[in-house]
Amino acid sequence: MRPSGRAIDALRPVSIQTGFARHAEGSALIRMGGTEVLCAASVESRVPPFLRGKGQGWVTAEYGMLPRATHNRGPREAAKGKQGGRTHEIQRLIARALRAGIDLKALGEISITVDCDVLNADGGTRCAAITGAWVALRLALDGLVRANVLPALPITAQVAAVSCGLTQAGAVLDLDYAEDSNASADANFVLTETGGIVEIQGTAEQAPFSQEQFNELMRLAQVGTARLFEIQRDAVAQAVAA
Amino acid sequence: MRPSGRAIDALRPVSIQTGFARHAEGSALIRMGGTEVLCAASVESRVPPFLRGKGQGWVTAEYGMLPRATHNRGPREAAKGKQGGRTHEIQRLIARALRAGIDLKALGEISITVDCDVLNADGGTRCAAITGAWVALRLALDGLVRANVLPALPITAQVAAVSCGLTQAGAVLDLDYAEDSNASADANFVLTETGGIVEIQGTAEQAPFSQEQFNELMRLAQVGTARLFEIQRDAVAQAVAA
Amino acid sequence: MRPSGRAIDALRPVSIQTGFARHAEGSALIRMGGTEVLCAASVESRVPPFLRGKGQGWVTAEYGMLPRATHNRGPREAAKGKQGGRTHEIQRLIARALRAGIDLKALGEISITVDCDVLNADGGTRCAAITGAWVALRLALDGLVRANVLPALPITAQVAAVSCGLTQAGAVLDLDYAEDSNASADANFVLTETGGIVEIQGTAEQAPFSQEQFNELMRLAQVGTARLFEIQRDAVAQAVAA
Amino acid sequence: MRPSGRAIDALRPVSIQTGFARHAEGSALIRMGGTEVLCAASVESRVPPFLRGKGQGWVTAEYGMLPRATHNRGPREAAKGKQGGRTHEIQRLIARALRAGIDLKALGEISITVDCDVLNADGGTRCAAITGAWVALRLALDGLVRANVLPALPITAQVAAVSCGLTQAGAVLDLDYAEDSNASADANFVLTETGGIVEIQGTAEQAPFSQEQFNELMRLAQVGTARLFEIQRDAVAQAVAA
Amino acid sequence: MRPSGRAIDALRPVSIQTGFARHAEGSALIRMGGTEVLCAASVESRVPPFLRGKGQGWVTAEYGMLPRATHNRGPREAAKGKQGGRTHEIQRLIARALRAGIDLKALGEISITVDCDVLNADGGTRCAAITGAWVALRLALDGLVRANVLPALPITAQVAAVSCGLTQAGAVLDLDYAEDSNASADANFVLTETGGIVEIQGTAEQAPFSQEQFNELMRLAQVGTARLFEIQRDAVAQAVAA
Amino acid sequence: MRPSGRAIDALRPVSIQTGFARHAEGSALIRMGGTEVLCAASVESRVPPFLRGKGQGWVTAEYGMLPRATHNRGPREAAKGKQGGRTHEIQRLIARALRAGIDLKALGEISITVDCDVLNADGGTRCAAITGAWVALRLALDGLVRANVLPALPITAQVAAVSCGLTQAGAVLDLDYAEDSNASADANFVLTETGGIVEIQGTAEQAPFSQEQFNELMRLAQVGTARLFEIQRDAVAQAVAA
Repeated sequence: MRPSGRAIDALRPVSIQTGFARHAEGSALIRMGGTEVLCAASVESRVPPFLRGKGQGWVTAEYGMLPRATHNRGPREAAKGKQGGRTHEIQRLIARALRAGIDLKALGEISITVDCDVLNADGGTRCAAITGAWVALRLALDGLVRANVLPALPITAQVAAVSCGLTQAGAVLDLDYAEDSNASADANFVLTETGGIVEIQGTAEQAPFSQEQFNELMRLAQVGTARLFEIQRDAVAQAVAA
Repeated sequence: MRPSGRAIDALRPVSIQTGFARHAEGSALIRMGGTEVLCAASVESRVPPFLRGKGQGWVTAEYGMLPRATHNRGPREAAKGKQGGRTHEIQRLIARALRAGIDLKALGEISITVDCDVLNADGGTRCAAITGAWVALRLALDGLVRANVLPALPITAQVAAVSCGLTQAGAVLDLDYAEDSNASADANFVLTETGGIVEIQGTAEQAPFSQEQFNELMRLAQVGTARLFEIQRDAVAQAVAA
Repeated sequence: MRPSGRAIDALRPVSIQTGFARHAEGSALIRMGGTEVLCAASVESRVPPFLRGKGQGWVTAEYGMLPRATHNRGPREAAKGKQGGRTHEIQRLIARALRAGIDLKALGEISITVDCDVLNADGGTRCAAITGAWVALRLALDGLVRANVLPALPITAQVAAVSCGLTQAGAVLDLDYAEDSNASADANFVLTETGGIVEIQGTAEQAPFSQEQFNELMRLAQVGTARLFEIQRDAVAQAVAA
Repeated sequence: MRPSGRAIDALRPVSIQTGFARHAEGSALIRMGGTEVLCAASVESRVPPFLRGKGQGWVTAEYGMLPRATHNRGPREAAKGKQGGRTHEIQRLIARALRAGIDLKALGEISITVDCDVLNADGGTRCAAITGAWVALRLALDGLVRANVLPALPITAQVAAVSCGLTQAGAVLDLDYAEDSNASADANFVLTETGGIVEIQGTAEQAPFSQEQFNELMRLAQVGTARLFEIQRDAVAQAVAA
Repeated sequence: MRPSGRAIDALRPVSIQTGFARHAEGSALIRMGGTEVLCAASVESRVPPFLRGKGQGWVTAEYGMLPRATHNRGPREAAKGKQGGRTHEIQRLIARALRAGIDLKALGEISITVDCDVLNADGGTRCAAITGAWVALRLALDGLVRANVLPALPITAQVAAVSCGLTQAGAVLDLDYAEDSNASADANFVLTETGGIVEIQGTAEQAPFSQEQFNELMRLAQVGTARLFEIQRDAVAQAVAA
Repeated sequence: MRPSGRAIDALRPVSIQTGFARHAEGSALIRMGGTEVLCAASVESRVPPFLRGKGQGWVTAEYGMLPRATHNRGPREAAKGKQGGRTHEIQRLIARALRAGIDLKALGEISITVDCDVLNADGGTRCAAITGAWVALRLALDGLVRANVLPALPITAQVAAVSCGLTQAGAVLDLDYAEDSNASADANFVLTETGGIVEIQGTAEQAPFSQEQFNELMRLAQVGTARLFEIQRDAVAQAVAA
């Protein structure tokens, strides 16, 4: 039995509200249960130095957590003067995930930065960030097409992410904080709508796990992301219709 | 005529939503027109080193702005590795404003940090932050009384803030970004519900202004804060009733 | 009765020694009682990136305090690796004050940085810095005119600053450290020689103050700056004559 | 055909030289082809603040790369004043891998830091670091047993790591730099000698990959680590015998 | 012929003004020609962590240069966020020089920090700093004796420093900036009043120099410091008499 | 009698292994007793900003120490976020020493950075670094000549360094850690193969020393470097022959 009473393969209630960041070219406030992440895509007509003159674009991401998004207040990274290892790790993951679904050549010499800021945290913030960031990115690209900057959407895959883990209730989908802090293993899966694997990060927290257990986690991730892809498509459709 | 069509002494639409930061001891999401600031108060049972053993508490504040709260994306302070001068200046102002309304001796050896994070910016973020932060602080103190940590609220004044400025439409109340960036002078007033002055910051942007002009700005500030005090009280009353 | 025995509207002994920083295009060592600030203006034939190609100049300021300018030694900001919030706040104030008295268009694509370093501190360092910095800036501009870089002085106002405060002796002019650390409120006024207001910063330290009290502080500031404008003019006249 | 001519499931030549860091409680210089990583374990009789008084130990890791370990010189992180995101990500991975094989309760209030410094890089540095770091840690623990600080080795699993990837030659084991920079996907596997999974990190570099491809990568990783476990045991046996 | 017309073994005009830093336990403003360094000694009743409980004191130094002490303005180290290599090198030198003349055991658990801040630079700032710092330290120690904190001065040697160099005029004493920037070699000598060597730093700027040349530089240094010792003694005597 | 039993004028066993840093244009792993420093020279076809367009090259150096090169683990400078004063001091010394032996005009607009990383420390690391760095630099220059980038070696002197000190055994050559930490004085000598002095750094640790003692230290340094020059030449000859 899960602490939340959810079925083993049930996501928490998920919603995606577009347009929250009023100035951003695309934005999505994603809620997965008690986790809320504001994703805002910013478009710039230039690329980082290492890509100049190569006729391709770039997509990157930054991640942050408000100091009191968590049970206990954490120090503000800006005040400490540096981003922690966890922040670095997560924002690199988000950026790779987004780049896996876009044709950077077709984007041309444009950079898109997606800021993912956690307003409330209850587990799974990096996966929620990826799922929301894809919507923000999608809407920003849509704006470039509508403004005739791009002839067509340079999107090659729809990308979403979910965490799974081994808990006292067995393998379960979409861990909340209570589960996450007691799981013997957890894994984050970044998948495409055609079932392709973009990124897998699996970690044993207490004891090593077996390949069979890992395969069960991946099966749950396929179930979870199937639902997330629908929610992403609905959010995009409503935003575009508006 | 103001760009927004507002009367000279009209605030923008203002709302305060409490409880947005789920883990915080007190929180308020304040909206003043297109400006939105999330204020979250965190309570800790210890004081900074310079106050240890003095039998009094401390209230401080931190201020941040999401990178895409603004028209153009600004660099993330955590990634730059330092907070800018404007951030320092504002968070010091918020903290002084909050301390002006509290009896630190009565608080006892407790620290309260109020994080003010701007989600969307359209002018007046520091004043909105003060007005919202006072509500967050008030609710956190209320929790301490309900938990019998404090015998009574250690509040000495209700504090709110508003900006006024000299624009092409003359002296006006509550500048939005369009007005602020063209004003010849602007001033931030932190006032108490009994009309006392907690802090005044007035700056000539283009040409020096006169004492008469300054007095007119202060009159508008009294009008504006009178309305803000009501909105604060309503928000507190609803939160406490819930 | 004031600790120093001064009349309520009396400045401390003030002197301005020009040319102390031998390499600077303009410099002024200002002494206000026990407070001494060395102000040095440096001219560069370029402007910061955000102004390039706009046909205007820039004036900025930096502020520092020697570690043992104060009663107890403070840590060196260079060793700590960052400037504190107070430093940021003050140097932004000085820079705004200086820009309020200059026509940046008439300056052309030239930057002037005025370094204000406190050698000895006894209250009122930011106001002394502004008053001295204006002299250093004025002398640097004079040099540009003499060198035919500028056709005329691009000065639009003479600017000086003084602090006032509410103490046990009532409203008083030009607080020293002993008064400043016990004042119930203090305010810094940056004024022009024609009585215009450039900047006002008023802060209640213990209890809110009234508009009447504030008006009395402003009256004292007008008295004090009238005398400071004379001292600035004398210092400039002697330096130019030399 | 692989650039190196190796069979699909062949490791590069691997050696582990113990004792290179003369002062360290345990050390291993691991060479995997052209990749060389110096791993040095340091023992301290105290634990980080978050573990004080909990009766358990801690194992952590730091990772660095000499500036000219790579084809082109990279900037020295100490000179830049911060560790990059890649460094943070890798040292967190190494530390988790090591902790997965140790009983921290049995270790007692002791901290062990394993420094992994890359002297020469030719792909696979994080996996080589893990495999070498386990040997350094094992030898440091051995010293604690010999010194009667610990009654027995607190080791719960033997841990090693290897990278696999999808290249033009198909799925291959132990990528060198030439393969790594052209792989369409790569994955790092941290496994135990009984086949348990400690950590998986799989990343699509160009196109998403399938679950079948992923399973083939994991099969190769089991082949590769089987050989690495032997080499680790030989290195430990020789060091202990000496 | 030297640019300044000085004889080969002539110091520039030297003066030491004590008491300039009003709050410091000892201070000296030393002028050597156009070089001016303000040295301020601060006493604290505690020692750094590595000395706690060892029954001895500590003397350290910090060095800084005002941004416009030089011909062209240099960036402020506090604003850059770090002290440069030259600053580190010089402040370590000053501290070693001061410690060479004091009995740290006799000082007891007291720390003295001497801040040396260059107000105007015209070559030889590190040597001027040492010579002035010794006076500031001496006066601070004198205060401890007068206050009965110490039974006697814990001074073991009088210490001063001077630079010498090989220029077009041959070996010369006390280089000014014009000479220093064209010297083929220069050396800084920290000596005691009995002719002992505390520190030597000699550097070939263009071509290696010979032992004979080096010996001539040292001879000049003995001449120069003999005069500096007198000036130090006079300054101390006057300050103590006052 | 020295702790190591060495004669007063005996170096520790010295060896120089070239080519250790496989990617570097020149590299040398130097061992002096228990001290091991990896020196790697990197060539770039550009010069720092202050030299652009001046038709000359630049040689610089960076120095680091692996955290566990020492008896007790030291904090990693990259993790602390800054290089310490000792590091700054040493890398500036190495760079000056290398530049003293090269004709920067003849080098042309090329920069060479020599990284000196201490793998194991047992005293004398800065001197070992200089001696090894000269070999790495020499080999990198040799490569530029063989590649016809330079017509001839731009070398003007062979440079090596050694430390000497005053210990209980009197003046001795090449201090190891045990001697260094108890010496009453030590000095580092950077000399050329023709006996020229490039740099001298002599420091009294406990009591001032005399000119006679200093001359004896310099005599020992001449003996020691004579042997180091041979070892450098042998290492270069073997590397070039290979």
